[in-house]
Amino acid sequence: MSIFEKLESQVRSYSRGWPVVFHRAQGSWLYTEDEKPYLDFFAGAGALNYGHNNPVLKQALLDYISSDGVTHSLDMHTVAKRDFLNALDEVVFGPRDLHYKVTFPGPGGANAVEAALKLARKVTGKEAVINFTNAFHGMTLGALSVTGNSMKRGGAGIPLVHATPMPYASYFGGAYPDFLYFERLLDDSGSGLNEPAAVIVETVQGEGGINAAELDWLRSLDEICKRREILLIVDDVQMGCGRTGPFFSFEDAGIKPDMICLSKSIGGYGLPLALTLIRPDLDVWAPGEHNGTFRGISPAFVTAAEALRTFWTDDSLEKSTRAKGERVGAVLTEIADEHADLGLVAKGRGLARGLEFPDGETADKVCAAAFERGLLMETSGPDGEVAKLLPPLTVTDDEVEHGLGIIKESVAATLR
Amino acid sequence: MSIFEKLESQVRSYSRGWPVVFHRAQGSWLYTEDEKPYLDFFAGAGALNYGHNNPVLKQALLDYISSDGVTHSLDMHTVAKRDFLNALDEVVFGPRDLHYKVTFPGPGGANAVEAALKLARKVTGKEAVINFTNAFHGMTLGALSVTGNSMKRGGAGIPLVHATPMPYASYFGGAYPDFLYFERLLDDSGSGLNEPAAVIVETVQGEGGINAAELDWLRSLDEICKRREILLIVDDVQMGCGRTGPFFSFEDAGIKPDMICLSKSIGGYGLPLALTLIRPDLDVWAPGEHNGTFRGISPAFVTAAEALRTFWTDDSLEKSTRAKGERVGAVLTEIADEHADLGLVAKGRGLARGLEFPDGETADKVCAAAFERGLLMETSGPDGEVAKLLPPLTVTDDEVEHGLGIIKESVAATLR
Amino acid sequence: MSIFEKLESQVRSYSRGWPVVFHRAQGSWLYTEDEKPYLDFFAGAGALNYGHNNPVLKQALLDYISSDGVTHSLDMHTVAKRDFLNALDEVVFGPRDLHYKVTFPGPGGANAVEAALKLARKVTGKEAVINFTNAFHGMTLGALSVTGNSMKRGGAGIPLVHATPMPYASYFGGAYPDFLYFERLLDDSGSGLNEPAAVIVETVQGEGGINAAELDWLRSLDEICKRREILLIVDDVQMGCGRTGPFFSFEDAGIKPDMICLSKSIGGYGLPLALTLIRPDLDVWAPGEHNGTFRGISPAFVTAAEALRTFWTDDSLEKSTRAKGERVGAVLTEIADEHADLGLVAKGRGLARGLEFPDGETADKVCAAAFERGLLMETSGPDGEVAKLLPPLTVTDDEVEHGLGIIKESVAATLR
Amino acid sequence: MSIFEKLESQVRSYSRGWPVVFHRAQGSWLYTEDEKPYLDFFAGAGALNYGHNNPVLKQALLDYISSDGVTHSLDMHTVAKRDFLNALDEVVFGPRDLHYKVTFPGPGGANAVEAALKLARKVTGKEAVINFTNAFHGMTLGALSVTGNSMKRGGAGIPLVHATPMPYASYFGGAYPDFLYFERLLDDSGSGLNEPAAVIVETVQGEGGINAAELDWLRSLDEICKRREILLIVDDVQMGCGRTGPFFSFEDAGIKPDMICLSKSIGGYGLPLALTLIRPDLDVWAPGEHNGTFRGISPAFVTAAEALRTFWTDDSLEKSTRAKGERVGAVLTEIADEHADLGLVAKGRGLARGLEFPDGETADKVCAAAFERGLLMETSGPDGEVAKLLPPLTVTDDEVEHGLGIIKESVAATLR
Repeated sequence: MSIFEKLESQVRSYSRGWPVVFHRAQGSWLYTEDEKPYLDFFAGAGALNYGHNNPVLKQALLDYISSDGVTHSLDMHTVAKRDFLNALDEVVFGPRDLHYKVTFPGPGGANAVEAALKLARKVTGKEAVINFTNAFHGMTLGALSVTGNSMKRGGAGIPLVHATPMPYASYFGGAYPDFLYFERLLDDSGSGLNEPAAVIVETVQGEGGINAAELDWLRSLDEICKRREILLIVDDVQMGCGRTGPFFSFEDAGIKPDMICLSKSIGGYGLPLALTLIRPDLDVWAPGEHNGTFRGISPAFVTAAEALRTFWTDDSLEKSTRAKGERVGAVLTEIADEHADLGLVAKGRGLARGLEFPDGETADKVCAAAFERGLLMETSGPDGEVAKLLPPLTVTDDEVEHGLGIIKESVAATLR
Repeated sequence: MSIFEKLESQVRSYSRGWPVVFHRAQGSWLYTEDEKPYLDFFAGAGALNYGHNNPVLKQALLDYISSDGVTHSLDMHTVAKRDFLNALDEVVFGPRDLHYKVTFPGPGGANAVEAALKLARKVTGKEAVINFTNAFHGMTLGALSVTGNSMKRGGAGIPLVHATPMPYASYFGGAYPDFLYFERLLDDSGSGLNEPAAVIVETVQGEGGINAAELDWLRSLDEICKRREILLIVDDVQMGCGRTGPFFSFEDAGIKPDMICLSKSIGGYGLPLALTLIRPDLDVWAPGEHNGTFRGISPAFVTAAEALRTFWTDDSLEKSTRAKGERVGAVLTEIADEHADLGLVAKGRGLARGLEFPDGETADKVCAAAFERGLLMETSGPDGEVAKLLPPLTVTDDEVEHGLGIIKESVAATLR
Repeated sequence: MSIFEKLESQVRSYSRGWPVVFHRAQGSWLYTEDEKPYLDFFAGAGALNYGHNNPVLKQALLDYISSDGVTHSLDMHTVAKRDFLNALDEVVFGPRDLHYKVTFPGPGGANAVEAALKLARKVTGKEAVINFTNAFHGMTLGALSVTGNSMKRGGAGIPLVHATPMPYASYFGGAYPDFLYFERLLDDSGSGLNEPAAVIVETVQGEGGINAAELDWLRSLDEICKRREILLIVDDVQMGCGRTGPFFSFEDAGIKPDMICLSKSIGGYGLPLALTLIRPDLDVWAPGEHNGTFRGISPAFVTAAEALRTFWTDDSLEKSTRAKGERVGAVLTEIADEHADLGLVAKGRGLARGLEFPDGETADKVCAAAFERGLLMETSGPDGEVAKLLPPLTVTDDEVEHGLGIIKESVAATLR
Repeated sequence: MSIFEKLESQVRSYSRGWPVVFHRAQGSWLYTEDEKPYLDFFAGAGALNYGHNNPVLKQALLDYISSDGVTHSLDMHTVAKRDFLNALDEVVFGPRDLHYKVTFPGPGGANAVEAALKLARKVTGKEAVINFTNAFHGMTLGALSVTGNSMKRGGAGIPLVHATPMPYASYFGGAYPDFLYFERLLDDSGSGLNEPAAVIVETVQGEGGINAAELDWLRSLDEICKRREILLIVDDVQMGCGRTGPFFSFEDAGIKPDMICLSKSIGGYGLPLALTLIRPDLDVWAPGEHNGTFRGISPAFVTAAEALRTFWTDDSLEKSTRAKGERVGAVLTEIADEHADLGLVAKGRGLARGLEFPDGETADKVCAAAFERGLLMETSGPDGEVAKLLPPLTVTDDEVEHGLGIIKESVAATLR
């Protein structure tokens, strides 16, 4: 029996589908301890947009550690944090004419969501929140209460209340207006809907099955929130940092949310970092009202700043992501069309792509077949029915083609 | 205006008392960007038990990064995780005859608490939890609901329910039996106390004001929980990893909790890592029922494993912590005795020590005076009335004396 | 200053629109202390379906009281309760082939709802409940949590959670399928909807604005609940006891709910009585698990039994209610048609009828004009925009015409 | 099978211990259908303080009904309500220099409690409430959340939160200060106790086991609440209307609560009536914010006004209740002393008296033995271990002696 079997809780999941032991990683590739390479179309569930161990970031990280830079600093001022804030201001906020205050809510995306919900409730004095069907925002109690997945919700062991789910974009396949129910409930003082402090939304639902909201839908949502004075929180933990092309996933829609949750790839190198960006006038926190031990991991600030400066001072990454995304989308559509009789559907935007199968079992088999062929790809969606493609944005064209080739083969082998 | 003032939310707190910019760190010392040294008796709120940038851990970290070891791995199997689990088994569990399954609940202590509470509720089918007065368990909604501080609770914006606070050890100064109320409520089927799934407790309350529970109290609590089939969760996030002497803070009491929360210094180097240790028969999680992006930060596994092997294969650190703790305690007692008329009280165990002042304002002034003299020391307690000393366990005897000297001066200067 | 102004809380409402002091009552008429008669198209908000002080019931009541029959009996067995249960069995259950156990949940409709929700949660082990937009089920905390009106919900002072509102029949004016959203959320394991124990519904929403669900809608709801094993609770407090024609308002739809809440007119004479009827296999209460002081008001049992035997042993009341309802509906439609430009709408079924105005202010003025002309009529609906007609079912044809005449005049005078 | 067995839910309880069918009642006596008399030391759980069918009240009731007085009136002004309010003002409020606004919250005691809790939350903007161990306040969700009994709480099917139980008077047998824990938690901003809107208390806990709070305890509670600006709600539903001697049970303590809940005997004749009395400046209800169908049952107003004028215009009832209470207490003490080895305890105040047995089984047997001998007496307390004596206040001295004789015999027969 391995030490994993001996000691690790049965809650583990990814290691079940990929029963190997990984050792090292570079760019788009993970290598097992016996040097078997795997092309990584999973990218740390979106935490590795710049690939594994990017050499530029790596060097900055090694330099920082070697020089005994502060590692752990809570919310003290450090040179590393200053440099990161400067990079964020110059590279991200400035060019986009964005004005946000930055909260460091703790190390992960769930912390960013918890802080946003707390602040929205404090600012408005209201407790209710609107979330969307098939949303995923994290596993701590506050974040879980706005998450859709019933198995994960059931894990809470207490009723998860305070949030009411509304239909996400195209929930009815376009047959019915998307905001019909939401607007009607808000208009009707007898509807029984508790008046919401905020709406929390992903622009593309990753865990929910790679559901990409149309830009018009996002604009309508923004307009509804502004008109009704409901705060709009965009959870850009997975879709931000360029996953769909632009730095923020909502940029194409031309909206400016009241709060933005960032984590995963913001650290650049896979180290934990999270931000809650808040409209300056909403910054009504009391000092220390929200805190935590791992708010300032300076090595992550270093790689985060370096990543911003390396990848976001021009639009080359954005353009290449869009282009590669188009290519991936085209091939998935082709595959879906080949199996139109089985109801396969190609989904997604940018390099957040998915292939929906009739059921979770089939999607699992396709992913298993891909793993056998050296490709890491996971499922998502309420029944795990969507094979999800989140390659590093730095994936090469050859790697894209290699991965798509494996996917084609895996689908063919499974559906044969 | 600095970038900090321009961009950072007013929720920041530590940077207010220490308005300098730190640059590098080594051992017990932090250095500002203009190389002013500060002796660190704060140690990352307990996340830096082995000091800043310990050279042995640093080398292991540099080697790992240089070799392109996997950085981010969710819950995949990696060589780094295997090595950490082996170290935990051999160095920690084995010698203590402990048997726990390990859950990686996310990057921080609040995640460890959230996972423990979830699992306790799932296992028992009950929703209520018992916490203690002046407890601190974290800032996410589940962890916050078992935290005592009213300002932090108020930040939630929704009623925090599901937990009932019981008096912590010596809450009535020894005048009344500690478990009087708790036992009576449990015995009385008409008491109105919802039957609890679990009790969550710190052995020494750090944020609560360095309140050290007597070992007998801990044994009684353990006995009550066992007798009544209530799960006992020890939150050892701050007091574990040797802070009070032994690896686990509850070892001296001779108890074996049903679940243990670890974080902060378990990573060894200040990188985010958290564990929820669970009695094997409680491991009833469904695969993926609790998950998260930053569950497996391999650099943290590397420094964590190295720290266990460096510091915990013999009892030298434990002994030195006890000895230094005694010395610190003696001097604090001396100071308190000098100012007995003002009601100063020396508190704590091991290297978790505190000096209680009549009010928060005085404690703040003492800490400010210490900062002026080159010592970092924070306040805790419900009104911030306790100066809290959490030096690295690796602090030298000279550094201890240096720090205590500053504290003496600072108290004298303040109370003069 | 009158004693009312001196002592009565400002929460009073009906007395504001009708600033007179009533003294006696007979049939469809209320008389003030100076003998001014008012035709009562309000009927105790549906508690006086058999009119005021019906002479047959009155005699039975006087006889019972005169003979020192038990007045107050909690849930002891009494001759009066036996007689009522026999009447219920023989007159109501038997002819309709209905099989229910009878719970006496307390004196009012809210008690009947509270008991039904409790039992539904106990039976299913689930906490969530589905209610409908513009529902009204009562003012105690459990009943209020399934009520829609935002002002009344706000009065709770705590977040009302555990219920999710679904669109009531024709909520979108027929433009979209009624159960579209509900069914989709139930089908989708990622929807975020907590799995419901029960659905609670009124067949015609009285307080919500005289919204009459189509019989097909009720049948569909029943089918959905049966198929998905969700308990169906019909709150027939206002619409039962013949208000829409048949004894139970759902009879025309041909459905058999899992639980039925009855109150208001079940007592026959306006005395408090409430019943929660439950499918026999759902009767899993522990003895005394739900109780209350006013469960057995024997004078109410006496008038209740007498009312069942007087009005429900043949179908004459049902037929006359349908006929009168048709007549009232026709006149309201005529009035609405006359003012089609203003958007007046005639609503309702049986003798639960409403006339919807563009806003609450207009409806108030119409009711005030009617009051001046000697007619009692109230408003309902989320904005009080619906003039609500609930005449006693025993109203004579002449009285109907008299009342309708006043309404015509009042509308004309107001909209002139 | 009787119709009771056929139709009535198994939730029924009193009829299980007293398996007879009652027919008529007069004064202190209930008679079965075959004319077997039972001396009633239960008095409708305190709803029949003036006995069954008191001839003066009965005549007023018959006159009112015969004259076609309004029966059901919601919150319209009626002559009957005016007369009741005048009686309340003249007979109750005036002589005691009390100033309260009157809310008619619905027909029963639970409604009075629900309204008080709502208003306390609205006034203070706080959600938390303090209740006491072994409290009983009713079975609707809001009232149940402040009730102690675990079986009844379990019936809710959802976690009952928002209330924290504090130790009732003498909860620790006088060994420890009663408000020790409560005051300490309130003083300590880190205690984790949510700041309470209100305290709700019974002066003598009836259902909780006839626990009579000392007058000093009540005064201390009142003082704590006033000093800390916590609203004090006295639930006088069972102990008011003279049960302990004075009209309000708190009069002897000399306190004036912020809100008072009345029901049960306020109606005088056993008909449902409930009042929530509120300090005038707390009357911040919006019109209709709390309402209900059975707020104005005029027959109950008639008997209520008549009862006030008959029994409370002088102090004869108060004096006789005290005297009879002393006599009952003396005999119970005598019985308890005879069985001191078994731990029997005599409890109570006024004519709310109890005899505590070692366990519920023994108490049940004693009550069964009393029933066999023609006496109705129930159990209360968390384990049903207290035989509870609530005779009508109008019980004659002979009846008292007769009842006490039966109790002596029943105890002797059971403990023999």
